[in-house]
Amino acid sequence: MAHTIVIFGASGDLTSRKLIPALYRLFQKKRLPVDTQIVGVSRSEYSHDQWREQLTESTAKFVGKGFDSEAWQAFSQQIFYQPGDIQQTEDFQALGEFLKSIEPEGPVDRVYYLSTKPQLYEKAIAQLGASGLNDDSNGERRVIVEKPFGTDLASAKALNHAMHQVFREDQVYRIDHYLGKETVQNLFVLRFANTIFEPLWNHNYIDHVQITVAEEVPVGRRAGYYDTSGVLRDMVQNHLLQLMMITAMEPPARFDADLVRDEKVKVLHSVRPMVGGDFASDSVRGQYEGYLQEEGVPAGSQTASFAAVKLHVDNWRWQGVPFYLRSGKAMSCRTTQIVIHFRDAPHLLLGSKTRVPTANQLVIQVQPAEGIQLHFQTKVPDTELKTKLSSLDFRFQSECGGGAMPDSYQRLLLDALNGDASLFARSDEVELAWGIIDPLIAAWRSPAAPPLQTYPQGEWGPEWCTQWMQQQGRQWFDVCPVLKG
Amino acid sequence: MAHTIVIFGASGDLTSRKLIPALYRLFQKKRLPVDTQIVGVSRSEYSHDQWREQLTESTAKFVGKGFDSEAWQAFSQQIFYQPGDIQQTEDFQALGEFLKSIEPEGPVDRVYYLSTKPQLYEKAIAQLGASGLNDDSNGERRVIVEKPFGTDLASAKALNHAMHQVFREDQVYRIDHYLGKETVQNLFVLRFANTIFEPLWNHNYIDHVQITVAEEVPVGRRAGYYDTSGVLRDMVQNHLLQLMMITAMEPPARFDADLVRDEKVKVLHSVRPMVGGDFASDSVRGQYEGYLQEEGVPAGSQTASFAAVKLHVDNWRWQGVPFYLRSGKAMSCRTTQIVIHFRDAPHLLLGSKTRVPTANQLVIQVQPAEGIQLHFQTKVPDTELKTKLSSLDFRFQSECGGGAMPDSYQRLLLDALNGDASLFARSDEVELAWGIIDPLIAAWRSPAAPPLQTYPQGEWGPEWCTQWMQQQGRQWFDVCPVLKG
Repeated sequence: MAHTIVIFGASGDLTSRKLIPALYRLFQKKRLPVDTQIVGVSRSEYSHDQWREQLTESTAKFVGKGFDSEAWQAFSQQIFYQPGDIQQTEDFQALGEFLKSIEPEGPVDRVYYLSTKPQLYEKAIAQLGASGLNDDSNGERRVIVEKPFGTDLASAKALNHAMHQVFREDQVYRIDHYLGKETVQNLFVLRFANTIFEPLWNHNYIDHVQITVAEEVPVGRRAGYYDTSGVLRDMVQNHLLQLMMITAMEPPARFDADLVRDEKVKVLHSVRPMVGGDFASDSVRGQYEGYLQEEGVPAGSQTASFAAVKLHVDNWRWQGVPFYLRSGKAMSCRTTQIVIHFRDAPHLLLGSKTRVPTANQLVIQVQPAEGIQLHFQTKVPDTELKTKLSSLDFRFQSECGGGAMPDSYQRLLLDALNGDASLFARSDEVELAWGIIDPLIAAWRSPAAPPLQTYPQGEWGPEWCTQWMQQQGRQWFDVCPVLKG
Repeated sequence: MAHTIVIFGASGDLTSRKLIPALYRLFQKKRLPVDTQIVGVSRSEYSHDQWREQLTESTAKFVGKGFDSEAWQAFSQQIFYQPGDIQQTEDFQALGEFLKSIEPEGPVDRVYYLSTKPQLYEKAIAQLGASGLNDDSNGERRVIVEKPFGTDLASAKALNHAMHQVFREDQVYRIDHYLGKETVQNLFVLRFANTIFEPLWNHNYIDHVQITVAEEVPVGRRAGYYDTSGVLRDMVQNHLLQLMMITAMEPPARFDADLVRDEKVKVLHSVRPMVGGDFASDSVRGQYEGYLQEEGVPAGSQTASFAAVKLHVDNWRWQGVPFYLRSGKAMSCRTTQIVIHFRDAPHLLLGSKTRVPTANQLVIQVQPAEGIQLHFQTKVPDTELKTKLSSLDFRFQSECGGGAMPDSYQRLLLDALNGDASLFARSDEVELAWGIIDPLIAAWRSPAAPPLQTYPQGEWGPEWCTQWMQQQGRQWFDVCPVLKG
């Protein structure tokens, strides 16, 4: 089966940084279907060769030392360019003609990749419909959409509605590149291909779960845009809730796109809505010192660059086990990690002879470290029965022959080409996530908001967030990952 | 409180190889009570200084690079020698006088260490009683006994009876140096100071347990003695059953000598007696090729140098979970290991996309490697959802600053000095263990015996043992430990 990938917004950053390098690496590894053609579309007037030349330079740069000019030469012959403006219906007609001209006879599967500004998504979808490019009578037609999927529940619903005018839900692939990460997928394996974790994976043995997505950098040149979004929209609604769903979900019947997403959606349905005083007591809102001086940030902005949110999952498995979601910019280090914090042992029979044990923790490092650490008690050698927290350590990178882990986009593009939507967000998932975040955004703008805490750059967020956790008898896992090799 | 350690059989191998080096290391680490004196007793006529000189040489050799002559010089002043014959009552009188002459006024705790031939134990005990050396009105009187504790149930009972004529059970310290190993004690910590293992530690999640004590060397110059003992008496009755008890026991109320041993004894009470055809179906009996040529082995000897025994523990926790005990000489490598083999995942939801998973295993390396490995499934990076068995690895040695782990005797001697009998075998424990092994020894000499299998030196025992396990749908964990730095 022949494939065509059409990238709208081809001149954008994502195309040169991620998409073309990912497709090139798949080609190099002989995992891209052999008869795959790539067509870039944007308003600039390039010839095929001009675009290929640009991509040669950027791909060499972003692929780095794995770049092989001979392989690239071969690959680049499969890349084409077609100028077009999302606003112009006739440009879509021309695109249709061009695709026919380069595609072989017989059925061809097409993937349309929307890498444009989000404001253009609805228009682009409508144009694809109007020009008949959604017609799947001669091969599959799929559309990949980058986040954000709306900026609140209403806009997400409107976008989904617009999509469903032109494409069936099973044709829509909403990408959250976190789901393409090896460590996130490994969470499925960890939980469902092992017998030793699942029996512990519930309120009987787990005290709470911490999910942290920390960025070391401040907002920088994105400040103007960021100020309209803030951390809840930028990180919590998508990445953090995604990680939470995969951590909390019940085992699906099979690893099938809809069955997996049914289970994820059930988690969101179980999240206890925050009401009244919950917003102030169960969330922490922060802004790093210096944020107001960033270029493009309006004077006196109240936008949060840090959030910590305590969510309850009201189902049998998770009754009484809070999920703490935390994200911020200008933090101590860049790290995405899920920490399963187990309960203390029910009875400290070694009590008199040991220090007070620290509870077991399973730490799943998502990025930039990719690995698993199990913190457990061992005996301090050459003592009577003193114990200490030791760690069983597993790193993906060393498993991967020391080479770099494949970028998420490789996996996700390949899945979209193969029609496997398991690792993409479904419309109900996106809408439910907004349903959780919208009230929080609204509350943070209301008198019910917790006070905006400032925090110094390079720390783990506001001091208050540490105290808030301590008042609950818990402690953040504030550990920067050690990066090896 | 002053302490005296009296070693009977002072000129023997154990004293120079283990006991004096262990006491010296404790002294060096300032863990030996400061006013501890050591008195060697044997038939040879040495002066104090002659014995000290001998010990200087042997201790320097066996302690190795940690030996410090200055510290030794100080320590050796606490060592004395008193000639004496176990058979001569007057020698015990003289010993009593000598002890009084070197001991300070006031109460002194004494430990009598029986490091003589086992045939002399009863006599030595009787003499201690006859000469009043068991009188504990002026300090504790404890006696440490080396294995074997009898050669069958009847002789063990007789020995215990003789002991109890002179000492109360709480004064008797039966040493099994396996219990002094850090990794064995760590099993207590692993199980009872962590929340993540105990919930899995039962028939719901564990398929079976393998306990292996493999020796690489053949019987060598001990062949004459060994032939009268065989592997069941030499290894299974003591070390293997000890490891099994600690693996299988319920959590004691506290870490108290009698409470711990009560729980260990309960395990032996729960072992299902083998009857009739069980001996042939549930045990494997082996002899390595060349055993009959060892010096001192009688022609046509049927003595087993290899045993594998399948035991059932009939209690709630372990119903249906066989414990496989295996030991042999002239095996692939020297290793003592406990393997907790978990059940397969109840439902392979990744089935169609993964290889058949191998069950999780927790491997506790007791010696010479001392560490823990947890084998679990992870995702093979850069594949769809293929899984493979990875391992979380923890080593004691690296925890111990790279230095050698303390020898078991250090810990056990210190415990005996401090009156903590937790890691010593109690009389009922020893008798129950013989109660399990005696019928097996008898059966192996009867028509009910499984055939004696020969096996090549340097392998994991008889080929039949591998097949026997496979017929039960299981597989031995035949992995030699990797020893690091």
